[in-house]
Amino acid sequence: MEVTIMLYDGITALDAIGPYEVFAATQQCNVKFVAKKKGIIKLDSKMGYLHADYSFSEITSADILIVPGCSPPNYKDAMNDEETLNWIRKMHNTSKWTTSVCNGSLILGAAGLLNDVEATSHWGSFDILQSLGAIPTEERVVRQGKIVTAAGVSAGIDMALNLVAWEWGEDAGKAAQLILEYDPQPPFDSGSPKKASPQLLEQVSAKIKEIEKQKTETDW
Amino acid sequence: MEVTIMLYDGITALDAIGPYEVFAATQQCNVKFVAKKKGIIKLDSKMGYLHADYSFSEITSADILIVPGCSPPNYKDAMNDEETLNWIRKMHNTSKWTTSVCNGSLILGAAGLLNDVEATSHWGSFDILQSLGAIPTEERVVRQGKIVTAAGVSAGIDMALNLVAWEWGEDAGKAAQLILEYDPQPPFDSGSPKKASPQLLEQVSAKIKEIEKQKTETDW
Repeated sequence: MEVTIMLYDGITALDAIGPYEVFAATQQCNVKFVAKKKGIIKLDSKMGYLHADYSFSEITSADILIVPGCSPPNYKDAMNDEETLNWIRKMHNTSKWTTSVCNGSLILGAAGLLNDVEATSHWGSFDILQSLGAIPTEERVVRQGKIVTAAGVSAGIDMALNLVAWEWGEDAGKAAQLILEYDPQPPFDSGSPKKASPQLLEQVSAKIKEIEKQKTETDW
Repeated sequence: MEVTIMLYDGITALDAIGPYEVFAATQQCNVKFVAKKKGIIKLDSKMGYLHADYSFSEITSADILIVPGCSPPNYKDAMNDEETLNWIRKMHNTSKWTTSVCNGSLILGAAGLLNDVEATSHWGSFDILQSLGAIPTEERVVRQGKIVTAAGVSAGIDMALNLVAWEWGEDAGKAAQLILEYDPQPPFDSGSPKKASPQLLEQVSAKIKEIEKQKTETDW
């Protein structure tokens, strides 16, 4: 099973590494990190890097395509880049599954893949998701035909476990979960807008807008 | 707040990236990826890389030290390398928190930091943990003074959320959780040996032993 994870400067590392680790644990996947240009990829935090081992021109098909998200507004570069969008469309033509994590769904939307399709994203990006023609859906993992979108950042782990179960059966998914000891025990229960207090939600929303504003003013 | 994540060839990516992403989300941490030699770091899957931006000689102290784990037996290189162990001891001397994820605790143990200390590890590494003088403890996150150990792979996310709460208060931890949309919904409940079926546990244990055997026969 060929799994391709698209990387780009300004990406959120966990969006990519969560699903990667699940597929790696199956021992049945060949996972490839692919970017427009191979080499070092800057993280959105500006505190580290991932590495693309392949360029778009080297990878023209995969069973599973994963498009991770990023801090806003870093998705704009990919959304406005025809080479990236054409590569995604090409991969989607022959993929078994086309997927996104977090606001990576905005990039799928910009590629025209989410017209009238139920999809999710990071909770902070639902407005833009809707403006791209998708039907925003507040679920952790949304499956619509062969398109699967996951909610923010950490949701890519849950999405990948589902994909493993859909491909190889529940036992394979359970095995990956056990290898990763994915028995989550967050010390509090504020992981979604519905669960967070209104005050916290307002505070974090303002923080995200501030990050977006700062980043709009600087180049990658 | 200075957070240093130790990297080494053969590491499990999510062990490092889980905590990294939590600390990055706080916007209050300077996270540094550090290895014996800076540059590209090979992952245990042999399907990708992380990147160390600093070498041991460049980083001599941090508020939080994180030692991630790896597929067995990749921890052996670090456990047998005096330069690595001395660097860990030096970092521990002035750290506020010295932590590990997964079987990274074996490396802390080899550095002599876990004598008679309650600690956890990946569930598959408890025997070795005990042989290093630690008191193996089946909890997701074990805090003993300034030493904090997390269970396997994904447990680093829960550990980091706890550390954020201990440092800046529960609201800061909740904010990081909301940014990462960490509202886990694994599709099944097999993430620990206690929860998995005996058959699955046996099968996965055999798989891990097989990986260990293969890797013992090859060099990094």
